[in-house]
Amino acid sequence: MELAGLSVREDAVGNIFGRWDGVEPELAAVATGSHIDAIPYSGKYDGVIGVLGAIEAIRVPKRSGFKPRRSLEVILFTSEEPTRFGIGSLGSRLLAGSEDLANSLKTTTDIQNISFLDAARSAGYSKNEDDLSSVFLKKGTYSAFVELHIEQGPILEDEGISIGIVTAIAAPASLTVEFEGNGGHAGAVLMPNRNDAGLAASELALAVERHVLDSGSIDTVGTVGILELHPGAINSIPSKSHLEIDTRDIDEERRNKVVEKIHQSAIKITKTRGVKLSDFHVINQDPPALSDEAIIKAVETATKELNLTSKLMISRAYHDSLFMARLSPMGMIFIPCYKGYSHKPEEFATIQDMSNGVKVLTLTLAKLSSH
Amino acid sequence: MELAGLSVREDAVGNIFGRWDGVEPELAAVATGSHIDAIPYSGKYDGVIGVLGAIEAIRVPKRSGFKPRRSLEVILFTSEEPTRFGIGSLGSRLLAGSEDLANSLKTTTDIQNISFLDAARSAGYSKNEDDLSSVFLKKGTYSAFVELHIEQGPILEDEGISIGIVTAIAAPASLTVEFEGNGGHAGAVLMPNRNDAGLAASELALAVERHVLDSGSIDTVGTVGILELHPGAINSIPSKSHLEIDTRDIDEERRNKVVEKIHQSAIKITKTRGVKLSDFHVINQDPPALSDEAIIKAVETATKELNLTSKLMISRAYHDSLFMARLSPMGMIFIPCYKGYSHKPEEFATIQDMSNGVKVLTLTLAKLSSH
Repeated sequence: MELAGLSVREDAVGNIFGRWDGVEPELAAVATGSHIDAIPYSGKYDGVIGVLGAIEAIRVPKRSGFKPRRSLEVILFTSEEPTRFGIGSLGSRLLAGSEDLANSLKTTTDIQNISFLDAARSAGYSKNEDDLSSVFLKKGTYSAFVELHIEQGPILEDEGISIGIVTAIAAPASLTVEFEGNGGHAGAVLMPNRNDAGLAASELALAVERHVLDSGSIDTVGTVGILELHPGAINSIPSKSHLEIDTRDIDEERRNKVVEKIHQSAIKITKTRGVKLSDFHVINQDPPALSDEAIIKAVETATKELNLTSKLMISRAYHDSLFMARLSPMGMIFIPCYKGYSHKPEEFATIQDMSNGVKVLTLTLAKLSSH
Repeated sequence: MELAGLSVREDAVGNIFGRWDGVEPELAAVATGSHIDAIPYSGKYDGVIGVLGAIEAIRVPKRSGFKPRRSLEVILFTSEEPTRFGIGSLGSRLLAGSEDLANSLKTTTDIQNISFLDAARSAGYSKNEDDLSSVFLKKGTYSAFVELHIEQGPILEDEGISIGIVTAIAAPASLTVEFEGNGGHAGAVLMPNRNDAGLAASELALAVERHVLDSGSIDTVGTVGILELHPGAINSIPSKSHLEIDTRDIDEERRNKVVEKIHQSAIKITKTRGVKLSDFHVINQDPPALSDEAIIKAVETATKELNLTSKLMISRAYHDSLFMARLSPMGMIFIPCYKGYSHKPEEFATIQDMSNGVKVLTLTLAKLSSH
């Protein structure tokens, strides 16, 4: 960002901001950005395009002598993926002023029992607990926020369309569940005497799928991405199991119904299998976000001026934009990605599509910063 | 063993033998022993009692001036638990002359890709591949083999009986199964487009239980002790899953039918879920073993002479004895254990019960070594 001539600041959790002052710097700025962290065994386009693309979308007009009315800011959000501390969009969630998150982070630890605060400190951030609320941004800090991202779905590639204009972001809910049974020797404990925590987990995983399909809506999805058994030996009946479940929808109520049904199923399983539900915890259960009409229009106009095809669409993946929508009008620009693959090494976007996305972002920022 | 005055030798994989020469050392010896390795998060009685108990059962008569006709040998079997290389009773299986195992060990690796041969070498064993067959013992090396062990089931404790006399050991089969799907983003890939390798694994885990229960026999058991998902992130649809399955029975045919049904289910799941069965591998599928009538009688007589209660019973856990039965007449002595717990930290046997077991073993060895 410094090389692009932006003035850089970092906040107490590692969100990084690069600012280009506009002609009227006292006005709310227009912001753009994304994240560069990734899940294990993932690709290198998810998030990264929205950060490098944002820098490019500012560098080019800056070089060409364009003077924005409103200041422009690039934001590199920290910890969008819920990998180390289990919290998705940690950076943008804090920027949007989540008091709940700021409080819970005081006691959050990773799988090795390293606290969030220690991890932040060892990276040179948050010196004390109070710093977390210093991250909160005031509503009105930005007049608009736009994020460029790969679609992470197959629609644009399938239909041969260059640009997706996001009208809404599906609302994610994340759950952790733990069952506890008696364990024991795989040969010696007879079937009627078992309280197999692993089979309880398998039943719940299949129940998640059933409840999602029962919604009857194509927009409802649910996934068990983590299922771990303890002690994890072939000749040992699992005494504990741990699941992490993700479910999302563009309809908050419908998704909350799925969460409730998962809870009911977990309770029912404890009864039929004689296991204990030692944990059922909603990590986050966010409302969906709608894009701002004026930003949708600005992106649409930009694609037309560039003679690119576009399509209004829903984001079924969540993004930092979901939380930025709580702070300011929000919009997202999607580009096609190979077979809709994401969160795996095959993730890919062509130079042409990335270039189209950056051009649309550039024009959109120019338009939004002029109002 | 050296402190007990035994002459000690080790073989090329780390089985350890301690010998007390009898009055007629040219006769086949009587052997006893067990293992001291353990699964993760296990207890400290499974196996260990049969080794320390065996040393004590030789030390005491030796001190008292008893002279056995046949030599007595204590065997400490290596790697009874299938923990590092996935192969249960590795030491006794090789002693029993398994050419298949000796061959497959040439290419076997652990989860960190360290080969069995390298691991053995770094522990000071097997210098070259040919050493593995040097471990094989000739049929007739022993006239009898007896193993002392905790029951690993609740029957003796429940019924207040001191000694279990094993008449048969249930036959274990171990399988590994892997499913491969497409993976992808937990939000972006719609439900009809999924090939979730994790849900395939959950379905198979429940199918294992169903097929076992369908056998209608209380002696049939089946366990999914290991179920792993890749990449293992809450927001990623599992692209791969890995299961390890244990099933056993005292009836070989009935157990083999369960293995076949599990295979059929795995194939069926690939069709309904559009996943690939990238691995379905029978690690071992052993026949059950019957105890020798003369050894059963010797143990029964010993318990009567000691005024202890006893019960004929089946071992549903497998033991090194299962493989020693291929080499020589075999018998097992069980003692009660707390709540039947095994393969977990709560595993426990009282001093009184251990002492009873060692006394019965001592008398049994004395009897068997006199014939």
